[in-house]
Amino acid sequence: MSKKINNTPKKDGFRMPGEFEKHKGCWMIWPERTDNWRNGAKPAQKAYIEVAEAIAEFEPVTMCVSQNQFMAAKEMLSSKIRLVEMSNDDAWMRDVGPTFVVNDKKNVRGVDWRFNAWGGLVDGLYFPWDKDDQIAKKVCEIENIDYYSLETFILEGGSIHTDGEGTLIATEACLLSEGRNPNLSKKEIENMLKEYLSIEKVLWLPHGIYLDETNEHVDNIVHYCKPGVLVLAWTDDPNDPQYAYSKAAYDYLSKEKDARGRSIEIIKLHIPDEVLINKEESEGVDKVDGTLPRNEGARQAASYANFYIANGGVIVPTFGDEMHDKMAIQTLSKVFPERKIVGIYAREILLGGGNIHCITQQQPLG
Amino acid sequence: MSKKINNTPKKDGFRMPGEFEKHKGCWMIWPERTDNWRNGAKPAQKAYIEVAEAIAEFEPVTMCVSQNQFMAAKEMLSSKIRLVEMSNDDAWMRDVGPTFVVNDKKNVRGVDWRFNAWGGLVDGLYFPWDKDDQIAKKVCEIENIDYYSLETFILEGGSIHTDGEGTLIATEACLLSEGRNPNLSKKEIENMLKEYLSIEKVLWLPHGIYLDETNEHVDNIVHYCKPGVLVLAWTDDPNDPQYAYSKAAYDYLSKEKDARGRSIEIIKLHIPDEVLINKEESEGVDKVDGTLPRNEGARQAASYANFYIANGGVIVPTFGDEMHDKMAIQTLSKVFPERKIVGIYAREILLGGGNIHCITQQQPLG
Repeated sequence: MSKKINNTPKKDGFRMPGEFEKHKGCWMIWPERTDNWRNGAKPAQKAYIEVAEAIAEFEPVTMCVSQNQFMAAKEMLSSKIRLVEMSNDDAWMRDVGPTFVVNDKKNVRGVDWRFNAWGGLVDGLYFPWDKDDQIAKKVCEIENIDYYSLETFILEGGSIHTDGEGTLIATEACLLSEGRNPNLSKKEIENMLKEYLSIEKVLWLPHGIYLDETNEHVDNIVHYCKPGVLVLAWTDDPNDPQYAYSKAAYDYLSKEKDARGRSIEIIKLHIPDEVLINKEESEGVDKVDGTLPRNEGARQAASYANFYIANGGVIVPTFGDEMHDKMAIQTLSKVFPERKIVGIYAREILLGGGNIHCITQQQPLG
Repeated sequence: MSKKINNTPKKDGFRMPGEFEKHKGCWMIWPERTDNWRNGAKPAQKAYIEVAEAIAEFEPVTMCVSQNQFMAAKEMLSSKIRLVEMSNDDAWMRDVGPTFVVNDKKNVRGVDWRFNAWGGLVDGLYFPWDKDDQIAKKVCEIENIDYYSLETFILEGGSIHTDGEGTLIATEACLLSEGRNPNLSKKEIENMLKEYLSIEKVLWLPHGIYLDETNEHVDNIVHYCKPGVLVLAWTDDPNDPQYAYSKAAYDYLSKEKDARGRSIEIIKLHIPDEVLINKEESEGVDKVDGTLPRNEGARQAASYANFYIANGGVIVPTFGDEMHDKMAIQTLSKVFPERKIVGIYAREILLGGGNIHCITQQQPLG
């Protein structure tokens, strides 16, 4: 009961809402690929379960699971979580799910971008990615939501953030990367975002988080908390390569105005102490040609900005760094006084290349 | 958001409604196995599409499709039909889907029987059948419906019919077959049906349709149209092996009373002229060890009783037998004056071993 719409959301009066607006629920995908997740993905599954169950305290959660893992996942998840079968190449619903748009009449539609595993044959993270690329359609089908389907334009949900009022933030490192839309200029990419998300102004950060394998998705470095206010991953250590990235973002955003002409309040979220893959973790991952290796000692792109805003709650990754974990939760408690802040130890998700925001996708209330 | 319930529908006050009661919608499975459906299942898919689109005129239809066929099915089906990915071993939703039960408060639950491909290792029609056996759970999960799950009791939805008022009809040939529940007596099987469907009285026909490979499912020979009234597949030809089967059913039902103490009105639906597989049809099916062969000249278990009752409509198989097709539609028009009778040429479904009722499963309105 879903149909492809041959127009654009802007022409139809649909906009991408902010994540802080009301949700109908949240979508996730069950992790299982053994060349990305250590020990048969069992530790990652536990972390995903914690995230799913935490979100389910605030809003309905649907977990998409492959046929292979369906019955096992059913045993591990509580009956609060809805399970639906869905083939996948990995478990990043933020990036493969639909970007939902809404209109004034509370109608909801999906935008189905092309997905090429964060860079396709240029610098993508695995091959093939055909199952992932079908997930946005399948989510819309289950929900009877009509969708806009882009034939060639490559985008992941984690590479954009919006205030729901006409402003979008992205990183140049990602959106202008060689592996995505090399034939489009920056201006043309802006125009696609404007047309498909009803955006008026795009703010371009040069970089995201240092060594972020997604070509530095914006959702790992900033997060809109409400219109005019965002958090920014930060470090006070000028010797950390992240310093220059965060400083550049800070300086840029300090001078910019959003689509409504407002200055932007920037709240710093200090990153945790360096997180490195250890020997045991590295050895638990299948080495497979064509998939990004998980080598011992590799620095992980750890950031507290990679949280999920649920109805009445915020689910934040923690890293076992007592001081910075605590600081992050305190900061977010002040930013979101009306929401409960729930910290979840997310090292196992981080080891797979992302974090809580990357593995979730909110469906706005229709 | 579905949970297994460790009780029985009877104890919880849930009953199986009649098919003629109001539906929320209809479930189907997309056919694709080339060792059952000729020519890569393409002709069968066309027939399934016709059935789905016809039902969709009356109520929402969800088509469950494997990953392999998902995108192809999306192209072939109209946007009226909801598609959801679901692994399967074949395409008989009546037999593998949940049997829905309802209570007085309009709550709906599922009953998830064990499925063993119509006889398991004794005389089942294919192996393995594990994906089919998970379908009832998956349908309930998608709909957020709690379900009763039977560990060992084997049953297919097509082997039972109910008037929704305490009466159930089944065939001895099927329910007492060696390949299903050989360790249970007839009385014990009756008790399971009573407990899981809130049945008070089971009516036992000795046989169903001659050469029906399901061990003669009841849904191919009779269909409850409303409490106290059913149609019975019939032949006037005493030399047809079907004659004895239909006559025995007629004689038995004529003398019996239903659970409410009513006599049963029996309306005869004459079967079509013999339908035999032709050479071309037989040659289009992959011959595979362990799957029922489709040999040239084999008589098919054709019957008009294998129809689907939708909200406001009845979808009836036709066989290109002008006289009997017309008779069946006329008869059903009188039986269902308030519903539109839609005939669909269903030879391709029949060739796969069943018909319109076998490939559908209604979900009652909650």
